Amino acid sequence: MIKNMTENQITLHIIKSLKENKKKEFESILDELQPYDIARIYDDLPDKHKTRFLLFLNTDLLADLIQELNKETQLEVLNKLGIEKTGKVLDTMDNDDLATLLDDLSPEKISSLLAGMKKEESKIVQDIMNYPPETAGRLMTNRLVWIRNYYSVKEAVEKLKIFAEFAETLNYLYVVDQERKLVGVVSYRDLLISEPNEIVRNIMFERVISVPAAMDQEEAARMIERYDFLAIPVVSEENVLLGIVTVDDILDVVIQEANEDIEKLSASGKSIDFETKTFVAAYRRLPWLILLLFIGLVSGKIISSYQETLNQVVALAFFMPMISGMTGNTGTQSLAVVVRGLVSHDLDKGTLLRLVWREFGVGLIIGLTCGVLISIIAYLWQGNAILGLVVGVSLLLTLIIGTLAGTVIPLILYRLNIDPAIASGPLITTLNDIFSLVTYFGIASAFLHLII
Amino acid sequence: MIKNMTENQITLHIIKSLKENKKKEFESILDELQPYDIARIYDDLPDKHKTRFLLFLNTDLLADLIQELNKETQLEVLNKLGIEKTGKVLDTMDNDDLATLLDDLSPEKISSLLAGMKKEESKIVQDIMNYPPETAGRLMTNRLVWIRNYYSVKEAVEKLKIFAEFAETLNYLYVVDQERKLVGVVSYRDLLISEPNEIVRNIMFERVISVPAAMDQEEAARMIERYDFLAIPVVSEENVLLGIVTVDDILDVVIQEANEDIEKLSASGKSIDFETKTFVAAYRRLPWLILLLFIGLVSGKIISSYQETLNQVVALAFFMPMISGMTGNTGTQSLAVVVRGLVSHDLDKGTLLRLVWREFGVGLIIGLTCGVLISIIAYLWQGNAILGLVVGVSLLLTLIIGTLAGTVIPLILYRLNIDPAIASGPLITTLNDIFSLVTYFGIASAFLHLII
Repeated sequence: MIKNMTENQITLHIIKSLKENKKKEFESILDELQPYDIARIYDDLPDKHKTRFLLFLNTDLLADLIQELNKETQLEVLNKLGIEKTGKVLDTMDNDDLATLLDDLSPEKISSLLAGMKKEESKIVQDIMNYPPETAGRLMTNRLVWIRNYYSVKEAVEKLKIFAEFAETLNYLYVVDQERKLVGVVSYRDLLISEPNEIVRNIMFERVISVPAAMDQEEAARMIERYDFLAIPVVSEENVLLGIVTVDDILDVVIQEANEDIEKLSASGKSIDFETKTFVAAYRRLPWLILLLFIGLVSGKIISSYQETLNQVVALAFFMPMISGMTGNTGTQSLAVVVRGLVSHDLDKGTLLRLVWREFGVGLIIGLTCGVLISIIAYLWQGNAILGLVVGVSLLLTLIIGTLAGTVIPLILYRLNIDPAIASGPLITTLNDIFSLVTYFGIASAFLHLII
Repeated sequence: MIKNMTENQITLHIIKSLKENKKKEFESILDELQPYDIARIYDDLPDKHKTRFLLFLNTDLLADLIQELNKETQLEVLNKLGIEKTGKVLDTMDNDDLATLLDDLSPEKISSLLAGMKKEESKIVQDIMNYPPETAGRLMTNRLVWIRNYYSVKEAVEKLKIFAEFAETLNYLYVVDQERKLVGVVSYRDLLISEPNEIVRNIMFERVISVPAAMDQEEAARMIERYDFLAIPVVSEENVLLGIVTVDDILDVVIQEANEDIEKLSASGKSIDFETKTFVAAYRRLPWLILLLFIGLVSGKIISSYQETLNQVVALAFFMPMISGMTGNTGTQSLAVVVRGLVSHDLDKGTLLRLVWREFGVGLIIGLTCGVLISIIAYLWQGNAILGLVVGVSLLLTLIIGTLAGTVIPLILYRLNIDPAIASGPLITTLNDIFSLVTYFGIASAFLHLII
């Protein structure tokens, strides 16, 4: 019925059915919509219709809806539902989404929400929440189909059919032994082409790739990306199958991690998006800016210590923004290459040395090119060959230093298990600013008697 | 057998089986490995063993292997295989991967590679290559299961079983009408719980979410991410089903697009990774740096036009790096917020105005905070209250301007369908540098008689 309608038309239609209290009509519309769309419609609905909208939804749809809302709205919806219905809805939600929902809430709020849930479901969620944030354990769901290694193919297919409604993906079944240890994996395809009486143990794939629950989510993402999996099993230290992490959650992780890298590279501090309030955004950005202010003063201090030189050749000031800008920039370029490269590469010693050597070469080439160029320009502009040479040699040196600093510092941080992206804002910018000013004024002072 | 071996042990085992010409043993090892791992082992193999390694692989494994190699090695492998085997392997490869492989090759090389392929397979690949790069059409594969809307549930299940081996994902079947137009989608789950004689048309979900083949891959990624799909159908302008884009390709797209954003934000030019050669990396980074060199000279020119002012109060130079650094930084922060926000948000007029207003507020707050702070510091350092006031007011103004420039410019570019991330390196940095120097020296010159 609503196949060719726009979102606005659908919303109007829904409001009409709510006003006229026509539940059947309402359900037939909702039936054709994706959870994401239902959530957007709920967001846009006038407040007075929201309560009845929720009343008209069954538990499954409510669970789907809540998973697509932002945190504030989630809690608002749960408040409207009351304890009993909330319990049912939380039972139905994916465990990983529920764990995310409970994440920052107070312990009292959490226990009041979990109170209405089934014991076994609330136990699972609490187990998930025991893993540190941003680990595979925190992301996993228990909506997977597992079979015993002594099952026959026929038994496996039966189990698959029963759990089809429940499982997140159907392409793979995980095989466990008596102790629920993960011992193999069987594809749906293999089941279809095998004899019904064959034992699973004999057709399964034994070298299962799994991740420990404590693994960092970024590393788990790398595994799924490498192997093109739709899901990866999560195991305990004893190799007991705990759950799976699915690719849709990994997609969110990858976007989140990329945003974090960009935030750190642009020194914009903790996550700010379109919805962040003015004061919060300013508050989150200020620490970096104040740090940078003091860093800027360090540069100022360096310049002031060369006040004599500057007083005698004011023209030196003209090239200051160019030299420090270029040095900062080449450093950021190297940093970006390293930070993003580490997303998809392991870092062994060979890679490391090759990379540093490559970046040294890059620094040398761009340093020579830009150095020669600026020498000529400076000479033509100021009519002073020595000044040109001073500026050119300074730029050559600062570009090599800047490139190496942008490469080596994040690599060292990575080795020390510190996130290299954090290095950008303060560390590299400071160091490169200071390096470049000291180099520039140092060389200029040495040749001062020739310039004047 | 190899279940608990390390990668090195496995490689040694494989080399042994190659030396002793034991194909059975070789195959039993390979059987337990993932394509990604096979590719890594191939990469590490001494050259003298590579040819026999390839000879021992069957067509399916060869196709899997090639999909995991980098481009150079892919072509090297195909060369070793000869025309006939190459044709068979290319027939087996996923069409989207094959299209990527052929991407930058010369027309002669492409037709020589396609020569050995089956007509229908090579036609499909050529069709895919007709879509512009970075579109849904370019990413799609035809490994999907589709059924007619007049099929019975029983017929649908039969077809699913036959194609299970071939399809990328099994959770959904796409339903087409007589003209192959996409009219619905049925989940595997719905098939299992329906009567075998029910007609697909009656149980299918009609509001199918699909993407046009010409859609930008980033937008297609956003759809999959929003709806948590494992695959999304791709249709022609006439709504004819052409293929599907799967989430594993989307994962690669998301990583690639994030890298591109970071490259542009750090002005590091076209993609550079750990493997890029020194000269290529230098060549790709140089254009931006040379541009920035000239931009730096514009700043120098502005400073030189205030030479008189600077001559009289050299201390003004001390605060130059701080003011331009801070302005550049707040601009980059705003830019990062906008660029990444656009990854997951649509931009309507309300959002736009709210965002600009928010950033103005942020600029005002950080401008006031940092302005007051620097006024005090400058006064204490230089013992000149007017100088402190000049520096403070300049910083307040330049921070507001910088924040707004970093917000408004990328939004305008986005509206003009230009990638806003590109705005960073040159545009925002230049403008903010120029704004900040003109503001600073303008204010300083106006109050010059008071400072001295």
